[in-house]
Amino acid sequence: MKLFFAGASPFARKVMAVAYETGVANRLTLVPTTVTPVAKDKLIAPYNPAGKIPTLVTEAGEAIYDSRVICEYLDVLAGGGRMFPTGEGRWKALVLQSLCDEALDSCLAARYETMLRPENLRWQDWINGHMGKVRQALDTLENDWVPYLNSNVNIGTITACSLLGYLDLRFPDEDWRSARPAIAVWHKAYSQRPAMAKTVPVV
Amino acid sequence: MKLFFAGASPFARKVMAVAYETGVANRLTLVPTTVTPVAKDKLIAPYNPAGKIPTLVTEAGEAIYDSRVICEYLDVLAGGGRMFPTGEGRWKALVLQSLCDEALDSCLAARYETMLRPENLRWQDWINGHMGKVRQALDTLENDWVPYLNSNVNIGTITACSLLGYLDLRFPDEDWRSARPAIAVWHKAYSQRPAMAKTVPVV
Repeated sequence: MKLFFAGASPFARKVMAVAYETGVANRLTLVPTTVTPVAKDKLIAPYNPAGKIPTLVTEAGEAIYDSRVICEYLDVLAGGGRMFPTGEGRWKALVLQSLCDEALDSCLAARYETMLRPENLRWQDWINGHMGKVRQALDTLENDWVPYLNSNVNIGTITACSLLGYLDLRFPDEDWRSARPAIAVWHKAYSQRPAMAKTVPVV
Repeated sequence: MKLFFAGASPFARKVMAVAYETGVANRLTLVPTTVTPVAKDKLIAPYNPAGKIPTLVTEAGEAIYDSRVICEYLDVLAGGGRMFPTGEGRWKALVLQSLCDEALDSCLAARYETMLRPENLRWQDWINGHMGKVRQALDTLENDWVPYLNSNVNIGTITACSLLGYLDLRFPDEDWRSARPAIAVWHKAYSQRPAMAKTVPVV
């Protein structure tokens, strides 16, 4: 299978972490790509009209996207029910994934505003609104999710670790740890898992 | 159950359409709300730190989000496997949902740029990039998905109908039909389904 990929993408990291956790990483051929909302990659568009990474192309030539669908596809390929719980446990794992995916989307919105958009067209309210959502998500993780994080390994915890790792990579001044000691401890421990250690984001 | 909701939201429409298709709509109490990326609704934030609609609160008081997770939750509540196929059929339904969700996200990005952002800070390349992705998604639907659309009813087809309905509501000048006659015919027929007719977006 072919995976369109970027080493700094937190969504591609989710996919690779699931691949390592479930033992299917050796079946993926990585195709490095660079995309932004205003610069599409021509290789991806025939498979995924949004032109986004990660996009997977199966051995049968079928396109699978976005990251949520690829992660579940790999989990099922490996037998199912490992990173995507079935039964009542499914909803908390998927809600945690959504919580962290939404925070990542806000990180990207704030980052595009400062890195991609011409300086004279930037809107501070936009950055503040999105970074406010990121901080609210982090506070929610600290206040409500620590027992869950400490006792589960699934698509939710992988996404939480990808979010915190992305903040370290792209928002080093955010200092997310100082007011949130419990998730800082969790993140340090969880990052030791081979699936996370092998997928530390790189620019 | 309580659903934070807006009558114009295509993501809330997906949830309501799944609720009607699976027969659980009468278990939902709708709470109308208005949110934008820079103006949060204080009612939603305790349940969902992204402050977005749709957000569901179950009878047990658990928050379920985002729209994808709510839709699957309602499908399972109704017995499962109806709007979310199991087995090999699952991936095409989920990829079609992603294709149309991504196009909707690009619609919203373009709309926020023109409706929310101060006029002197707007960036035409941003609008062009996102509307280019929307058009590519529509062309992909026209070229690759018409046989699938014509022979399935699931979360993918519901999302496709929500996307096209949203274009009619918010981008009436886009004239998406003229170069895409096959999905125009499909949309007209599919919109007659009670689940779609009862959820036509309103401002």
